[in-house]
This record gives sequence, structure tokens and C-alpha cells, in this order.
Amino acid sequence: MTSQTLTWTPIGGLGEVGKNMMALTYGNNILIIDAGIMFPESDMHGIDSVLPDYGFLRDRRDQVRGIVITHGHEDHIGAVEFVVKDFPGVPLYATPLTKGLIEAKLREAKLMDRATVNSVGVDATFQVGPFKVELFRMCHSIPDNVGVAVTTPAGLVVHSGDFKFDHSPVDGETSDFAKLAEFSARGVLALFSDSTNAEVPGITPSEREIEPALEHVFRDAPGRIFVATFASLISRVQQVVNVCEIYGRKLAVAGASMSENVRLAQKMGYLTVPDGLIVKLDDALKMPPQDVAFMATGTQGEPSAVLGRIATGKHPSITAQPGDTFVLSAHPIPGNDEYVHRIINRLFQKGANVVTTAHSKVHVSGHACQEEQKLLLSLVKPKYFIPVHGELRMLHAHKRLALEVGIAPENVFVVENGTTIDFSNGEAQLGERVPGGYVYVDGNSVGEIGPQVIAERASLARDGYVILVARRNEQGLVSGKPELLTRGWVFANDSRELIDRIATTIGEGLNGMGAASTQKLRERAVELTQRAISQETRRRPVVDAVIV
Amino acid sequence: MTSQTLTWTPIGGLGEVGKNMMALTYGNNILIIDAGIMFPESDMHGIDSVLPDYGFLRDRRDQVRGIVITHGHEDHIGAVEFVVKDFPGVPLYATPLTKGLIEAKLREAKLMDRATVNSVGVDATFQVGPFKVELFRMCHSIPDNVGVAVTTPAGLVVHSGDFKFDHSPVDGETSDFAKLAEFSARGVLALFSDSTNAEVPGITPSEREIEPALEHVFRDAPGRIFVATFASLISRVQQVVNVCEIYGRKLAVAGASMSENVRLAQKMGYLTVPDGLIVKLDDALKMPPQDVAFMATGTQGEPSAVLGRIATGKHPSITAQPGDTFVLSAHPIPGNDEYVHRIINRLFQKGANVVTTAHSKVHVSGHACQEEQKLLLSLVKPKYFIPVHGELRMLHAHKRLALEVGIAPENVFVVENGTTIDFSNGEAQLGERVPGGYVYVDGNSVGEIGPQVIAERASLARDGYVILVARRNEQGLVSGKPELLTRGWVFANDSRELIDRIATTIGEGLNGMGAASTQKLRERAVELTQRAISQETRRRPVVDAVIV
Repeated sequence: MTSQTLTWTPIGGLGEVGKNMMALTYGNNILIIDAGIMFPESDMHGIDSVLPDYGFLRDRRDQVRGIVITHGHEDHIGAVEFVVKDFPGVPLYATPLTKGLIEAKLREAKLMDRATVNSVGVDATFQVGPFKVELFRMCHSIPDNVGVAVTTPAGLVVHSGDFKFDHSPVDGETSDFAKLAEFSARGVLALFSDSTNAEVPGITPSEREIEPALEHVFRDAPGRIFVATFASLISRVQQVVNVCEIYGRKLAVAGASMSENVRLAQKMGYLTVPDGLIVKLDDALKMPPQDVAFMATGTQGEPSAVLGRIATGKHPSITAQPGDTFVLSAHPIPGNDEYVHRIINRLFQKGANVVTTAHSKVHVSGHACQEEQKLLLSLVKPKYFIPVHGELRMLHAHKRLALEVGIAPENVFVVENGTTIDFSNGEAQLGERVPGGYVYVDGNSVGEIGPQVIAERASLARDGYVILVARRNEQGLVSGKPELLTRGWVFANDSRELIDRIATTIGEGLNGMGAASTQKLRERAVELTQRAISQETRRRPVVDAVIV
Repeated sequence: MTSQTLTWTPIGGLGEVGKNMMALTYGNNILIIDAGIMFPESDMHGIDSVLPDYGFLRDRRDQVRGIVITHGHEDHIGAVEFVVKDFPGVPLYATPLTKGLIEAKLREAKLMDRATVNSVGVDATFQVGPFKVELFRMCHSIPDNVGVAVTTPAGLVVHSGDFKFDHSPVDGETSDFAKLAEFSARGVLALFSDSTNAEVPGITPSEREIEPALEHVFRDAPGRIFVATFASLISRVQQVVNVCEIYGRKLAVAGASMSENVRLAQKMGYLTVPDGLIVKLDDALKMPPQDVAFMATGTQGEPSAVLGRIATGKHPSITAQPGDTFVLSAHPIPGNDEYVHRIINRLFQKGANVVTTAHSKVHVSGHACQEEQKLLLSLVKPKYFIPVHGELRMLHAHKRLALEVGIAPENVFVVENGTTIDFSNGEAQLGERVPGGYVYVDGNSVGEIGPQVIAERASLARDGYVILVARRNEQGLVSGKPELLTRGWVFANDSRELIDRIATTIGEGLNGMGAASTQKLRERAVELTQRAISQETRRRPVVDAVIV
């Protein structure tokens, strides 16, 4: 042990702690783990995606030695294109499938030549500056998922990454218990562990348990079968391939993202498909309904994904019809429920049958539940425990589990993104806060949209806008009736009379003012407009005025 | 049996079928059941509440003989003030607590003198035109809840209303099994039954099962306890009163709606409170933390309710602090999860402890699960079954249960709001569709906001607006640089340069046009603005233009 300090920093805003990005700092050396995006919350109006604000690392750009990516989900790789630009020359380390998915992203962003992505095995050990990095396989809902152990002179810290303990995963690759036990034998200073399901008792069922449910659907379905799931859930595709083989159906993949992932996974050997089983979408649509199945995306209610377009009758080639069976092989992420339910209702409306996790075990979580979280704690036996990958409520639930397992309360740190923890001489303590938060991506702007614009959009969403245009004559007096432009307040075509009445009232008010400065007139115009609108409609649209 | 037809009509739009209002028509006689509102879905921007569109009944106003209300929840009484105005002189029938809650509404709307609300017992029988109405008690999450049986020459139909079978309800009043059995003996032509939990296996736990969980919280809490639930959940208030008595705490009620309901329930004898147990909020806040508990609303994440204001630090007198325990005694309604989770996280952030149904049985549903739904079917033994009070996905799940119980598939009707069912000569068949849908209430407008305005608000929420103001000189030519007004697109104060550049581009484009009609200039201005904005920011705000 030296007296030098290892600092851990979870990066982001008020969302899940350390989910999208975290950093380890030792002296003048920084190791980044993951570079993902967060999905916008429903009141982040118009925002496309949300980046963790890693600005404080940009200021120490030349100290960043490497970036380790745990797995290929968007919330862990979605920010790679930004990171590559901000940390030129810094090597990335990723397991083969993860590397494949990262490169697909970089190719699309035309950044391939600016990135060094090293392919490393799921049990690789490599040195990055002063950090000895050891990967270890952990089960999750995508192949080639790893946890990360880092040895520095300040001690050994272990990060679970996203994980579950699946003893019978579809690809046969279980979590690396041996390595976890070995870390424990070496002495683990701190464990960072996935808290997603810390409020859920018991054990997450094995992926394998989905197969009987799928077989049941395939046995009974009178017509076409559509299985919808996440584009990256390769094991689910494998399971559907398996039941297609058993029940003699061909399989077609609908939608660009899923087709691309299936192609990549097949090419790289993560998906085993009998020759001729996968057919083109157009060909599948011409086959007898009982001879074919489809895979698609859209389980989160996204209106532009394949399932959403089928449900609303907007898919160019697929029309839902009586006899069809739709399987929603996913859980709705909180916030999406309403939209998912709407899709299910619409499919029922078209006469199709819909099977969800409410009826049958057609999906399981990719994250550990309470008993697995306790198992990890018992296996690793860390001195300090830091629950990560969750909102505060989940971290607190995870803390309760750690106390049950016997970790001392003062050795559990529940912190928010931006709060660092310093490890020194085998002891941990809260470090300083680094500036952080989230950066909004909207169109081609990164970080230009802030809380003010979001607040403006929220006002506009509530009551729309009214703009008043008034004209001054040569004497500087407002004359005549001003014009009102509006959207989202009333439907202008149906409300001519109301608009006219309000314009007249405001016009009279302004005329009565006599000559005044443009600024004064404008302020008064806004005030009169707000008052008239409130009196007539009890609403408060965004109001602005131009005096010409 | 005569050959005359009894027609059943569920009224509303694409939401839960027959939830807010339904009608029975026999000859020239109409009986309305319930007059509730729907809560706006998250993409109904700015809408305050949503009424079922009962316009087709307004056209037959003089045929409406009476309105029976099943219970006092907003989704069953929220439209009473509109119904009272639209059907003057038509009597309402409600059980005592329901009547009390309706009258509180009518008083606020200054409509007391225009309504006749008859108080009827929970097992009352009364005649409304040709309809013999028999009420029967059913358990739910509010006292005095009833189902409605209606006998006409066309047969006996039974409507469950919202229900669960609670064998040990807090107020001791169980569902009226005797009457249900008696209906069965008389022969039930059709049963309409609550489908809310048709996807949930088993039996909804009794309200009574909450008490141990509450006692546990009260035993362990080191400081103040806040129990949040629905303002109308009188039995939950009774349970909190009971544990306060056991653990020697005083109780204060925060928030206007809950205070009013507690006062009403106490006055009417639905709530038994030992003298001196309930104290004023201000007094409670001065007591030692371990001597007091609070009840509040806000379990759905509403920012303006008591819980939301405490969580965001905006409550005038209550500040969350370490040692406080918050109990969320409710389930989040789908669509509200995100906001509820945010409140929980914020309370943890302030050092408080939070107990939800994820940790402990502090809430149970007010609706029957699958085994209770099957029990009702078995008790009533209807010839026809029509699942109601649910989205299509729930109705289909309920249909599956009915088939399991032995109802013939052709005797189950899954229909949407607006689709009528005709009963004649003991047979049922689909009737005609009546015009329906939902009516949006926004500010003081009822029905003026339609899908166009909602669509405008959705666009504004996404990317804001940009309004271009250009001036013509005396020659009719556009001259100089136009002005751009914007909100929600970019933050104007930070983006002067961008706005200036775009204005210059558009100005040059318009100058180049020469003289043209105002209409032409305006169209061109909108086009140029859209193009410039899209090129610069890849966004598509709402664009409008004024040529002065």
C-alpha cells in the first residue's frame, strides 16, 4: 500500500449512478469505464438523447489512459462517438461482440479512422497505465458482457457491470464464479454492484425459462407469429430460431437495427441458424401464415419502430390481421407503459392475439435480483460496498441487502453522480464533488439545449403560444387592430370570433396609451394579451409581442 | 318477455370501456349509470380532464329518466357538474357518502339548486321509468360503493361496478353475496363486470392486510411519519388513525382535498376518530417528531400535491428531514411511475426513509383479481358476459377467464366504447355504433380543444416555435433584415449570432423576390425559415411568418 489515492467518480446527472460512465483516477492517470447515453425522461421535451457530462475529464484529456467498455448496450456504448472525438488517441478496450457493435456506430459516424478499439477476451488481463485491468464474464441480456476488476497500488476494486447469475444461459456461458472467488481471496477493497433490481426479491429466472413459453405460443398459434424484443437481445433471437426449427417455421427479421444485429451476431458466431431458416421479409409475407414467424423491435411503444407501425397501420408491408399472434418479449421501461399498452390494445382491435409477460413467461430481466446481489456480495467479500447502476431508491434498497450480508453500515457509500470516493491506505472516504450533470442532444446540437429551453417547451406543450403584432403609424401611435398569431392555444380556424374580440380589446388598450417607447408598448402589449387570454379562456399560453 | 329491446351503451373514447359512463335504453327511456371523468393521458398536452362524449344522449334529453352513481371516485362522479347542466331536472341517485361527495362538487360549481340528488341505501330498490333498479354493496377502496342490477321487460342485467371481494374490509361491510345469489336464482341475462385486474392472477389481498405493515412502520420510525394516499381512501385514514392510537401519535391531515374528505367522512360516521387524536397541521409541526404522524396526498407524483411539494422543497410549512419516514400507500397509475420515482429519490436525497409497496404491503388494489372475477361469474351465472372497466387488453384477459368458467365464447362480447349491445327475446346481439369519443376540458373550455390543437402542442413541445416578422417598404418590396421571435427552439439570449445569421439569409431570399403578394411572400418566408433552421440545427420547430 502506498499513500497515493485512488479516486472513483460516477459521472452524470440525477439519473442512475455510474450507469453510463465512471472513472478511476490514480495520480495523473485516468481510466474510464463505459461511455453510454441515457434515454430522455418524458418531460425532457424534444430531446433525442442524453449524455453524461464528462467535461471535467476533457480538462484532463492528456491524463486519460484508456476506456474499458463492459457491454454493447446503448446505455454503455451510446456516447462512444463523442468520447472518441473528445479523447483522440485514447485506446478503447472491448470484448469481440461489443467491439463489433461499437465499430458499427463509429462507421456510421464516419469516425473509424479516429478510434483505436482493442479486442480483448472476456477473461483478459491488461495493463492501462498504473491500472491492472482484469475482465470477467458476467451474464446479462447480451453476449460478451463483462465485469471489471482493477488493481492499483491503492488496492483492488471490482465493478460488477450489468449482471445476473444465470446458471443455464442460452449461449451456455455462465458468470465467472472462479474469478470472483479469486478476487475475494486476494482481498477486495471495494465492490461496485448493479442495483437495478435491488427492490425485487428472489432470483431473476434463467433465460432458458422462456423457451417453454415460446414453445407454447408456437404450438397454439393458428397463423403468423411476431416476436418483438430488443434489437440487441441476441439470445432471444436464438431462442426464436430454435422454436422455429422445432415447429417448422421460417423466420424473417423486420427492421434495420435488428437485421443488422442478427447479421453481425451470425457472422461473429454468436447466433447459430440452420441454413435456409432465415428468409427475406418480402418472401415471408408471401408464405402461408402458419409457416412463418417474424422478429421485430418496438417493445417500448416507440411509434416509429416496426411494432408501433404495425399497430397503427403504418407499416409499408406488414398489416396485422385476425389469426396473427404478437409476442411482446420485453418489459416496458417505466414511463413507456402507456404507449406499450396502447400498442397492445390496437393489435387486439385489429383482431390479433397478443401475448405479454402478463400472460406467460415470455421475458425475464437481464439484471440480478436481491438473492443474486447478496450472492455477489458474499462471493466477493469487499471491505467497502458502493451500490451503483440505479436511482437513489434502488441504491438504498441495495444498501439494506449489504447490511443483511454483514457489511458494516459505515462501509457502505450511497452517493449520487458527481460525488467521488477516495481510497487511500485501505480506507475509503467521501471525496470532493466534481461538476457534472447531463448534456442534451437535440438534432445536431450537443449541450446547447438547457433547462430554460426545456421549460419553454413545457409551457408551449401546456397552452401553446400567442404572438401579437401591432403597427405604429407615423406619429408613433399604435393604430388599428393588432394581429394575433397562435398555435396550440385554440384552433385558430374555429376561433376567428374569439381572436378578433381579443385583438380589438388589446388594440383599444394600446391605442389609449398614446406615444410611448417601443419597449414600453411591447411590455404593455404582452400584459394586455395575457390578461385578455386569461379572462376569456383561463389559459396561460406563451405570449410575445412585436411592435412594427 | 316482450319483443322490446334493451340497449346497453358504453360511452367514451379509446379508453376503458364503460368506465366513466354507460346507458341503458328501453323504448323511449334512458337510464345513465355514472358520470365520471378520465385522467388525461401523458400526450394529451395541457388538458385538465377528459369527459366521455355523451352528445347523443343530449339529443334525447327528454328521454333520460335518471342517473345512478355507483361510488364517489372522480372517474365516476367527475362529470356530474356537466351532466346536471345538460340534463336539467333529471334525478340523480347515490348512496350517502357518494351523495356527500357529489354535493361538495356541486356546491363548488354553484349548481346545488339545479340538481336533485336522491340519497339511497346500499341495498335500495327503486323504480326509474321502466327500470327497476336494485343496488347491492360491493367492496372497493371507498365506502358506500355499489353494483347496479336493472330489471326491465327485456330481462335482468347486473353491473358489478368497481369491486373486489374483501372478506375483512376495514369498515366491516362485505360485498352482498346474498343478493348476487338471488339475482342468479332469478336468471341473469347479462353481467357487466370490472376488468381492471383481469391480467392479475389470484385474489386481491384484504385492506386489513395493510395494518401489520403500517404497525411495523410506526413501531420502527425514529421521527415523523408521513402516510400518503388517495384523498378518498377513507379506510386507509381509518387504519392510520388506528395505528396512531396504538403508538400514541397525534395525526394531522395536510392538503385541502384530504382534509375536506376526512371532515365529511367523520361527520357522516364513516370514520371513527378518538377525541383529540387529530390535531391541526401547524400544531403538529411543533410537536416532537416521534409523537406525530401526517396524512397527505400526492402518491401519483403530482408536483402540486403535498407530497410533491415536500419532495421539491416547495411546501410552505413542511420540510423533509433526516429521521422522517414517508409511506407511499398507493400504486402508481401507469404513466405516473417516472414522476413517483422522482419524488421517492428526492426524499431519499433529503435523508428521509421511504417505504413503498416494493418494501412492504402498505397498499392493496381496490379491484378484483382473476379468482374474484371468476367467483363473481360463478355466483351470478349470467347468460351473456360483457367485460367492462378496462382497456381492450384487460377485456380480452377477462374474456379468457369467462371461457374458463364455462361461458360460451359466442356469449361473450368484447366491445369498445360506442358499440351498443341489444338484448331482445333473451338474446343479445351487437347493435349500432353511436357517435362518441372524448371531450377535452382545458381551462374554461369544454370540447373546444380537439386533436389539431393537441397536435400543435406536441410539435411545440418537441422543437418550440420560430416566428418571422418581415417589413415591406412603400414599393411593396421586403427590405432589410427580418426579425425572428422564438421560444423552445434555441435559448434566444445565448444564440444571438445564429438567429442573426438565419435572419440575414432569409432576408436576402425575400429581398430577391421583388414585389409579390403578401400571401406569396408569407409562404416563401415560412419555406426559407424552415430550410435555414433545418440546415443549421436539424430541428423542425413550428414556423410562421408575418409580412407587415
